[in-house]
Amino acid sequence: MSRGKLFIVSGPSGVGKSTVLRALFAQNSNLYFSVSATTRDPRPGEEDGVHYHFLSMDTFREWIAKDEFLEYAEFVGNAYGTPRKYVDEALDAGKDVILDIEVQGAEQVCAKRPETVTVFIAPPSWEELERRLTARGTDTAEKIQKRLQRAKEEVLKANNYDYFVVNDTVENAVQELSAIMIAEHCRPDEKMTHLV
Amino acid sequence: MSRGKLFIVSGPSGVGKSTVLRALFAQNSNLYFSVSATTRDPRPGEEDGVHYHFLSMDTFREWIAKDEFLEYAEFVGNAYGTPRKYVDEALDAGKDVILDIEVQGAEQVCAKRPETVTVFIAPPSWEELERRLTARGTDTAEKIQKRLQRAKEEVLKANNYDYFVVNDTVENAVQELSAIMIAEHCRPDEKMTHLV
Repeated sequence: MSRGKLFIVSGPSGVGKSTVLRALFAQNSNLYFSVSATTRDPRPGEEDGVHYHFLSMDTFREWIAKDEFLEYAEFVGNAYGTPRKYVDEALDAGKDVILDIEVQGAEQVCAKRPETVTVFIAPPSWEELERRLTARGTDTAEKIQKRLQRAKEEVLKANNYDYFVVNDTVENAVQELSAIMIAEHCRPDEKMTHLV
Repeated sequence: MSRGKLFIVSGPSGVGKSTVLRALFAQNSNLYFSVSATTRDPRPGEEDGVHYHFLSMDTFREWIAKDEFLEYAEFVGNAYGTPRKYVDEALDAGKDVILDIEVQGAEQVCAKRPETVTVFIAPPSWEELERRLTARGTDTAEKIQKRLQRAKEEVLKANNYDYFVVNDTVENAVQELSAIMIAEHCRPDEKMTHLV
């Protein structure tokens, strides 16, 4: 059995990344979705190890000191990170692993694991992203403009991603994401060991 | 409409490359299969422009002088080459182009067109390649051993190919080849022009 591959999937708020990933996981049983660690308190209904690995700030710092994170960051007073352990267990078990993280986290992971394959989910147009953000009905007009501005900055920062998947329809985006994963398993490093 | 992409598909004699390509073309109408030029005489049933572009040696030399070939070579007194013109017409029309050429030709093409994507079709094992060559019933035992030897040399020379597709079953090989073509269309250069 060959080792799994590590994929990062990033994309701006409102692009439909969660829907695409849900559909991808429904199609492919050999995938592991990395669960983040966080120091924030669980919200009602959130389970430890399912939605997040909930850690105390002391434990989180200890994990940082022991290099237990592939990436981590702090947002509004809480720390979030990708624990190395579960990712490596899944890769060793031959599963492909998907990290749903932001562009800055992706840079940290790629520095530690240069073989990581990065995919950015992009909107078909800025007008369509604005339409999707508005359709969610969760944000004020001002917040939507902020999210749009942030999305434009993220696209600029993502220029070194390996692949861009335009989420025009969920079906197309899932097909492209699947194709990228199949193609990356055709890279020479792992494919030719049986012939040399 | 975006420009098509140029793919090279190579593989040793007996690996089943023609069968895989035929199945790929049956599935995908947006592909152009590059027809080679040659100075050898047409065999019965071969049509000019379909099986080969049949050229006189003078014309072939003229095309070389005018840089009309993406690659060319001589085998047992006859010249063979890939005319640039038809390939570029197809690419401009938005079609992906497949060149079915050998490793040395691939090097020439990649030197001229560094964006070319190279795929090597490999056998699942040397034993299986020998079995397939034997099953064809067209070669002597000695010839089969020579082909096997040549195949091993080709795999070593192909170590800088972008992708390796193991032809265990035609269905898997076609799926992987299709995935590679879809994935390569998700490369950032062409994907993000609508957002910047």
